[in-house]
Amino acid sequence: MRFVYCHNVKLTAVISCSINSFECARCRAYCKRFRNNLSFRMWGHSFFETASRLFHQRSSLSKIFIVVTVSGGGLATFHETKPVHTVYADSAQEAETSKKKKVVVLGTGWAGVSFLKNLRSSSYDVEVVSPKNYFMFTPLLPSVTCGTVEARSIVEPIRKITDKKGLDVEFREAECYRIDPKNKKVLCRSTQHSNLGLKEAEFSVDYDYLIVAMGAKTNTFNTPGVEQYAHFLKGIEDAVRIRQTVIDCFERASLPSVSEEEKKKLLSFVCVGGGPAGVEFAAELHDFVKEDLAKLYPSVIEYVKITVIEASDHILNMFDKRITSFAEGKFFRDGIDVKTGSLVVKLTDKEVSAKDRDTGKISNIPYGMVLWATGIGPRPEIIDFMKQIGQTNRRVLATDEWLRVEGCDSVYALGDCATVNQRRVVDDIVSIFQKADKDNSGTLSLEEFQEVMEDLMVRYPQLSLHLKSKHMRNIDELLENSWKNPKDEIDIETFKAALSQADSQMKNLPATAQVAAQQGAYLADCFNRMEECEKYPEGPLKFRDVGRHRFQPFRYKHFGMFAPLGGEQTAAHLPGDWVSIGHSTQWLWYSVYASKLVSWRTRVLVVSDWGRRSIFGRDSSRI
Amino acid sequence: MRFVYCHNVKLTAVISCSINSFECARCRAYCKRFRNNLSFRMWGHSFFETASRLFHQRSSLSKIFIVVTVSGGGLATFHETKPVHTVYADSAQEAETSKKKKVVVLGTGWAGVSFLKNLRSSSYDVEVVSPKNYFMFTPLLPSVTCGTVEARSIVEPIRKITDKKGLDVEFREAECYRIDPKNKKVLCRSTQHSNLGLKEAEFSVDYDYLIVAMGAKTNTFNTPGVEQYAHFLKGIEDAVRIRQTVIDCFERASLPSVSEEEKKKLLSFVCVGGGPAGVEFAAELHDFVKEDLAKLYPSVIEYVKITVIEASDHILNMFDKRITSFAEGKFFRDGIDVKTGSLVVKLTDKEVSAKDRDTGKISNIPYGMVLWATGIGPRPEIIDFMKQIGQTNRRVLATDEWLRVEGCDSVYALGDCATVNQRRVVDDIVSIFQKADKDNSGTLSLEEFQEVMEDLMVRYPQLSLHLKSKHMRNIDELLENSWKNPKDEIDIETFKAALSQADSQMKNLPATAQVAAQQGAYLADCFNRMEECEKYPEGPLKFRDVGRHRFQPFRYKHFGMFAPLGGEQTAAHLPGDWVSIGHSTQWLWYSVYASKLVSWRTRVLVVSDWGRRSIFGRDSSRI
Repeated sequence: MRFVYCHNVKLTAVISCSINSFECARCRAYCKRFRNNLSFRMWGHSFFETASRLFHQRSSLSKIFIVVTVSGGGLATFHETKPVHTVYADSAQEAETSKKKKVVVLGTGWAGVSFLKNLRSSSYDVEVVSPKNYFMFTPLLPSVTCGTVEARSIVEPIRKITDKKGLDVEFREAECYRIDPKNKKVLCRSTQHSNLGLKEAEFSVDYDYLIVAMGAKTNTFNTPGVEQYAHFLKGIEDAVRIRQTVIDCFERASLPSVSEEEKKKLLSFVCVGGGPAGVEFAAELHDFVKEDLAKLYPSVIEYVKITVIEASDHILNMFDKRITSFAEGKFFRDGIDVKTGSLVVKLTDKEVSAKDRDTGKISNIPYGMVLWATGIGPRPEIIDFMKQIGQTNRRVLATDEWLRVEGCDSVYALGDCATVNQRRVVDDIVSIFQKADKDNSGTLSLEEFQEVMEDLMVRYPQLSLHLKSKHMRNIDELLENSWKNPKDEIDIETFKAALSQADSQMKNLPATAQVAAQQGAYLADCFNRMEECEKYPEGPLKFRDVGRHRFQPFRYKHFGMFAPLGGEQTAAHLPGDWVSIGHSTQWLWYSVYASKLVSWRTRVLVVSDWGRRSIFGRDSSRI
Repeated sequence: MRFVYCHNVKLTAVISCSINSFECARCRAYCKRFRNNLSFRMWGHSFFETASRLFHQRSSLSKIFIVVTVSGGGLATFHETKPVHTVYADSAQEAETSKKKKVVVLGTGWAGVSFLKNLRSSSYDVEVVSPKNYFMFTPLLPSVTCGTVEARSIVEPIRKITDKKGLDVEFREAECYRIDPKNKKVLCRSTQHSNLGLKEAEFSVDYDYLIVAMGAKTNTFNTPGVEQYAHFLKGIEDAVRIRQTVIDCFERASLPSVSEEEKKKLLSFVCVGGGPAGVEFAAELHDFVKEDLAKLYPSVIEYVKITVIEASDHILNMFDKRITSFAEGKFFRDGIDVKTGSLVVKLTDKEVSAKDRDTGKISNIPYGMVLWATGIGPRPEIIDFMKQIGQTNRRVLATDEWLRVEGCDSVYALGDCATVNQRRVVDDIVSIFQKADKDNSGTLSLEEFQEVMEDLMVRYPQLSLHLKSKHMRNIDELLENSWKNPKDEIDIETFKAALSQADSQMKNLPATAQVAAQQGAYLADCFNRMEECEKYPEGPLKFRDVGRHRFQPFRYKHFGMFAPLGGEQTAAHLPGDWVSIGHSTQWLWYSVYASKLVSWRTRVLVVSDWGRRSIFGRDSSRI
């Protein structure tokens, strides 16, 4: 059992209290946070929600409802006479009488769709604008390039995802070419006109809240020839075109008029970038060649060569070293050529020119197909938007920890198009000290510090990491030498010296689907409880302002990373620095990805694709 | 039991004799033909072949092998000590010592693939040239346009189909742009170059035998605007593009800036041609709209209109009238507008102009998408080839009944690119009479006539149809008044008068998959037994020449036609003038098509696609 403070009184067994039983907003926030910390969020929260919704819908059942759950060694009894959701329902009814707020979502990738899937409040008119009328399960995109999984198995129409009762969601298949934050509108144009032989249709959409989740584009680092000759792997069309091109190379090499040198060139597949996407593509292609194409193109198979070019010292360098060396070893055994420490400087229609970082020597690799998978850069519309709001000197759109775009009202940005700009403790140290110093004595007592302690930890997550690295349990341990005697007080310099080291623990979030999905779910949760939290803010203390933040800041929870390496072997870097490699991890990969797919349709299709591949192999028809 | 003649001696129970037990070639041919007539061909033949192959491979089993089959009320005993296939094996071994003949197959549609699948003799070097490296199951193409079946479920790579042990088959993904019959070679060019950013590769292939199975293109009848604005439905890319365009129309109509009139135009789908393909597309589209899109695009669904324009008086006019009227009634109830007696005269980017055949009035129909499905015309390479061989005044490449291109040595043509030019009895009547008149008396006795009777029936299939229409059993009944007394003889004029009426029964074969597949199988069978039949010809008497034809002429067997009408209802016109309409016929359609698919992979995929559609609906993602 853990103790928390409310109005300077220790509260025990908060777990058995209903949130609404607290009159004071701060206590409600505490209670909620405490429940979340006990990992109720992951399972219990959604269970409670479902149960609550069920009992809300069937009120006759709610008279007697006792759930006995063994959690953390304690006994939790859930006895809300008024379900949590009543708050939303009431506010929804109120909102319906007034005008609904207009929420515009740009993009239907992980972030946008996660937001839409988790949005439950009917207090908004939602309009989604995206050039793709579907959501794509990006982690399986490399599998599509070689036909292990079919393109249509990993997509789900947005209209199906948003087709929820009680929600007003309109979808527009169009691209936003300009965000106009001054007039609170976005300017869009149609994407179907060229296929239909029509003129471009333009329209604008007004918003009260704008959610920018447009993703990013591949970063070419302005390398000459890349835009013209390389393939990218961002969308379904890219994957389909890569699949066609691989077959084209094999078919062309099988023509009678083709010389041996030409065959070698045609069947040289180069992947620039040794990140997860590049490595997975190389592994998939190797499997495709070995398991399927070798039988069908026996006369040219000896000419096939797969090369991975990586600028740093190792492929998969964001993974643990054990994984990196296993991957490099496996690729070596498979005959995949890994060129590390090589920077691609130019692409022509025939060759990739790579410069050795150490010797400066340039080697030319003839190719039949090049995949460029080196990282991401901002889209032109986002650069334009950044200019408008004064974020000119940044590489990516910056938001605060509540995913609000800095320097812009009512605009949120999430996913690959944005980055969360964490506050440094050192920048706010004076404000923190002043806020904590309630009696304005210029010094801080232990009691004063303890009162802001929880808020500090929430507001500056680097403090937790710092404590962890120092093997400490509580933040006051950082300063315990100063408060040996309860009456001791500390000055700002001591305070600064103790806390500001924590900033070294700050890390940017990776540009992954996992981050984007969590951001979308977080933001939807905020929107679901917008009115409630307006009245009863649940976030930490505002150290540079009065009052509290409405919501808790966004906190990313890392669930691990996979790197499929081909031959039914996968490497996984799991939380807690666990590493797992091999066939069993491949099965873990299958289960996780199957469970994470967006709908039962895609789940069934992907699983049957895997089955189909293992029975009949991959299809090599050039369609 | 039926009697046949051999050396003027009646033979009974030919069924129980092995082919090889006949010394005389003519008797062997008779025996074979007789067995075929007893419909052994359909089931027994392939069963015998399989059994024979099995026993040939496992010779220890062949010592005792008695198959007792009840067929036609008789008892047939199969007791070959030397299996039929031994003949091929011997000849194959001989051929391997000499140079193998080179067979070049152009095209991988129904005809080409059926030939390749049925070719078993290893006496040939086979080279297949086609711009598609896969075979496509065309009857399911309309289902692909709306996502009832996925594109990849109906294709199978040619290399997989031809990957048979003992056969030398090379595949070249290229298009043949010129056939050079003088030098016995075909000129080809690569089809991958544009995607790979390479120059076109050209090469030539020599042949000993050429099999032209390149198919046809859609006939636009030179209607202005068709090439530019209409969609066709010949290949997988067409079906995929139609599917994308349908979704594009719905998405564009859902944009906020689109006027009501524009919405009506965008959601007007026009199908020109009321044949099976056009009708099935209209039915599929109607189902797609009703079952799937109506839920996802509720705001625009009221504007959807599907129109079928047909030049003749009825849609599906090659079907029975009962089917036609049922289809028209169903389309009327479904709200599909059927405009019969309307000829499309022009297409612009906005409208289809159709002229009423009776009134001459032109009506303009605005459209979002037009499908042009009006019939087929020859491809430019075929027209060029026809010019070279002097077939200048014909619309389609003409072959004789053995599928040999007329006026050209060693070239065969089958499928949609060719038509079988049947001989008219009246053209050959003098030769027939002279051939039959063995004693050169200038008149024909019953005995003389009976000797050529079987050959006549085989050589001129219209005679059988003519007899059937007259309810006669034997051809001599046509002349029975002339031979009341066995010593009577008839002159050429009587003979001519009796036989030449039969020519009215001549019909061109329809351009269907069924015809093409049967032609391919027939030709492969000829190639399998080429050397055997060279020695022992099994075809009918050559009436205008000496000796016998090597093979029996190609004879088409009609197994019926399906017309799916949507809403799980199908109409079928079965042999024997049977008509079946409704849900049960849909199940018949499912079973026939599933069984006719080219591989187990496609079979599993198509059946699971049908299941997936019925559970999850069709996917509307625009990919």
